[in-house]
Amino acid sequence: MDLIDETIAAIRPLDGAAMRDARDHQARLTKPPGSLGVLEEVSVRLAGLAGQCPPPLPEPAAVAVFAADHGVHAQGVTPWPQEVTAQMVANFLAGGAVVNAFAAQVGARVSVVDVGVATELDGTEPDGTEPDGTEPDGTGAGDAPGLLRRKIAAGTADMTAGPAMTAGEARRAVETGIEVARELAADGAGCLIAGDMGIANTTASAALIAAFTGLPPEDVTGRGTGIDDATHAHKVEIVRAALARHGLAAGHGAAPMETLAAVGGLEHAAIAGFVLGAAALRVPVVLDGVIAGAAALAAAALCPDALGGCVAGHRSAEPGHAAALRALGLRPLVDLELRLGEGTGALLALPLVQGAVRVLHEVATFDSAGVSEKSGGAEEDGSGRP
Amino acid sequence: MDLIDETIAAIRPLDGAAMRDARDHQARLTKPPGSLGVLEEVSVRLAGLAGQCPPPLPEPAAVAVFAADHGVHAQGVTPWPQEVTAQMVANFLAGGAVVNAFAAQVGARVSVVDVGVATELDGTEPDGTEPDGTEPDGTGAGDAPGLLRRKIAAGTADMTAGPAMTAGEARRAVETGIEVARELAADGAGCLIAGDMGIANTTASAALIAAFTGLPPEDVTGRGTGIDDATHAHKVEIVRAALARHGLAAGHGAAPMETLAAVGGLEHAAIAGFVLGAAALRVPVVLDGVIAGAAALAAAALCPDALGGCVAGHRSAEPGHAAALRALGLRPLVDLELRLGEGTGALLALPLVQGAVRVLHEVATFDSAGVSEKSGGAEEDGSGRP
Repeated sequence: MDLIDETIAAIRPLDGAAMRDARDHQARLTKPPGSLGVLEEVSVRLAGLAGQCPPPLPEPAAVAVFAADHGVHAQGVTPWPQEVTAQMVANFLAGGAVVNAFAAQVGARVSVVDVGVATELDGTEPDGTEPDGTEPDGTGAGDAPGLLRRKIAAGTADMTAGPAMTAGEARRAVETGIEVARELAADGAGCLIAGDMGIANTTASAALIAAFTGLPPEDVTGRGTGIDDATHAHKVEIVRAALARHGLAAGHGAAPMETLAAVGGLEHAAIAGFVLGAAALRVPVVLDGVIAGAAALAAAALCPDALGGCVAGHRSAEPGHAAALRALGLRPLVDLELRLGEGTGALLALPLVQGAVRVLHEVATFDSAGVSEKSGGAEEDGSGRP
Repeated sequence: MDLIDETIAAIRPLDGAAMRDARDHQARLTKPPGSLGVLEEVSVRLAGLAGQCPPPLPEPAAVAVFAADHGVHAQGVTPWPQEVTAQMVANFLAGGAVVNAFAAQVGARVSVVDVGVATELDGTEPDGTEPDGTEPDGTGAGDAPGLLRRKIAAGTADMTAGPAMTAGEARRAVETGIEVARELAADGAGCLIAGDMGIANTTASAALIAAFTGLPPEDVTGRGTGIDDATHAHKVEIVRAALARHGLAAGHGAAPMETLAAVGGLEHAAIAGFVLGAAALRVPVVLDGVIAGAAALAAAALCPDALGGCVAGHRSAEPGHAAALRALGLRPLVDLELRLGEGTGALLALPLVQGAVRVLHEVATFDSAGVSEKSGGAEEDGSGRP
């Protein structure tokens, strides 16, 4: 049995008894029943994932930013040059990106996983910085701490001309995601976040989401970094052409690994593996935006139970992300028109997830705090208690 | 000039030059323009409040939970007994409530301000704990650290029978809020949150929101802690009766201090003062739920510029809160059907506000990081740059 099959075999459904315990405990806490809204269900699901109530506090959190390039970039789907992927990897490693600022705010650690950046990441100084004062070439990752070198290919191939990945590349990318989840968990992470970096990756995300949900390209293809009307119309047609090229138009019931290989990115495959790996270890994952949403659809197609421990951190401005969350049945915690990626939306949601679980650990019950309960019993509160 | 007038006179509009600087800086950062969505505008407003870009990081945060009882409780608007207010104050001081758990999660300090709890808070041990093992009487606040004793009255009077507060009580409550904001800021708080505790305070909130927005009682009166249909219908009629009693039905253009006195709570008046006091000091406030929303309407009626530095932390499940936020023109950062109060929704939003400002401090620009900008210039991105 290979790593992917072994991982999937280890994934269990959420534990119903622990979920019942968590619901019962929430009802005894010193607050009106149900008054923590959506966060109560988050705490219940994480209890189900852990198989105990309270579940472990989901901390510390570790973010893995999976970086890769996309052959479909050649089709003119974005005004950003491809070298920005490598330049932003250098920026992550230097601590200068939004993911770094948000991670610092919420106490999470950032790693960057090169699963498919087109350019090499070792053109510059050994410490990972650019030569001072000279023209940066955008490849200054060097051997910076935090960089995991797991390059599977120098970007995908153009999905409109053929499969984006070979079957072997797609499998290795999924395996890499599993391995990274294992490594971060072994390092003590109690909560995992998958970020992403890859110019043109919203195009591949749209193709994956269309293939997995059966929705038409125009419903799931967004403006990514903020493209104009003409580029957006072109991007929709590119997605449509790729789906047609690979027989993935609506209703074909795409097989997950084949779909990932046909129109996915190396980072999508890796994030799908990351979700599987975390689920097998019963470590919660906070999902970020449209790239993670597309990858989560692939993970769910490979193993529906893998999504039990996933919390939708946010909903991005990309229409495909909303479609992916609907298909996954996940309600996002943050909804602020973010469209940045990198893991940023998930990091904003992290304290909400942690707070939801912390309530089960620290909040007093009516009995223990000597607080009176309301008159008339609990039957009116809709909490499902007898 | 008294404290309220002096405070209002010190409040300035947001600084337009600092806001422009913040928008320009956001556009130079290594991210697609506008990709932080609503959080970019939060950072711009806090720059305007501070009069500089970047504004100070809004930390550490301090929560003041304003606790008070309500004479309208006698009208049967809630199944919770009134003594729960004092019991929950004891719970806050013992660290056992959700506000404590969330504050611990995000590194905020909690104080409790008794502005009008009906029962005395010193029935027990000097350290604030209940006598060990004996029946808790729910009044165990003692002289616990974190308790600010600023009781103005032992709860309000029943607003359906007469004014909830005298004019003098309402003014003293507003002054108390100003003083607490000053004290917390003097202690180093860089961000202020007003929480609330008071059985029946959603009834007073509904009356205030109806009076300030002109909306009918049935549109702004919610189910509070989760009341049944019959109690809810009764609650709507109580709000309607109170508004009629005080000539505050739709379209009367209520004067703010008179409206607070007629149908408000001592905690509403105090929170209105807290907002004014923070604005005068240019310290941002993250607003919590429907009680803070009602109080913010009062503060805005007293001084519209006082709301410039207020961020709507969340939108609660109470319909009156949504109405208040619409009237204030504020978009909530978290929207998860919470209906707990205490400051809990604002605490969940705090890392988002802090992250928004941290971006202005820590994220590299395209120039400084050597990251290529997209082709075609900036005119298509809608950021308003030339």
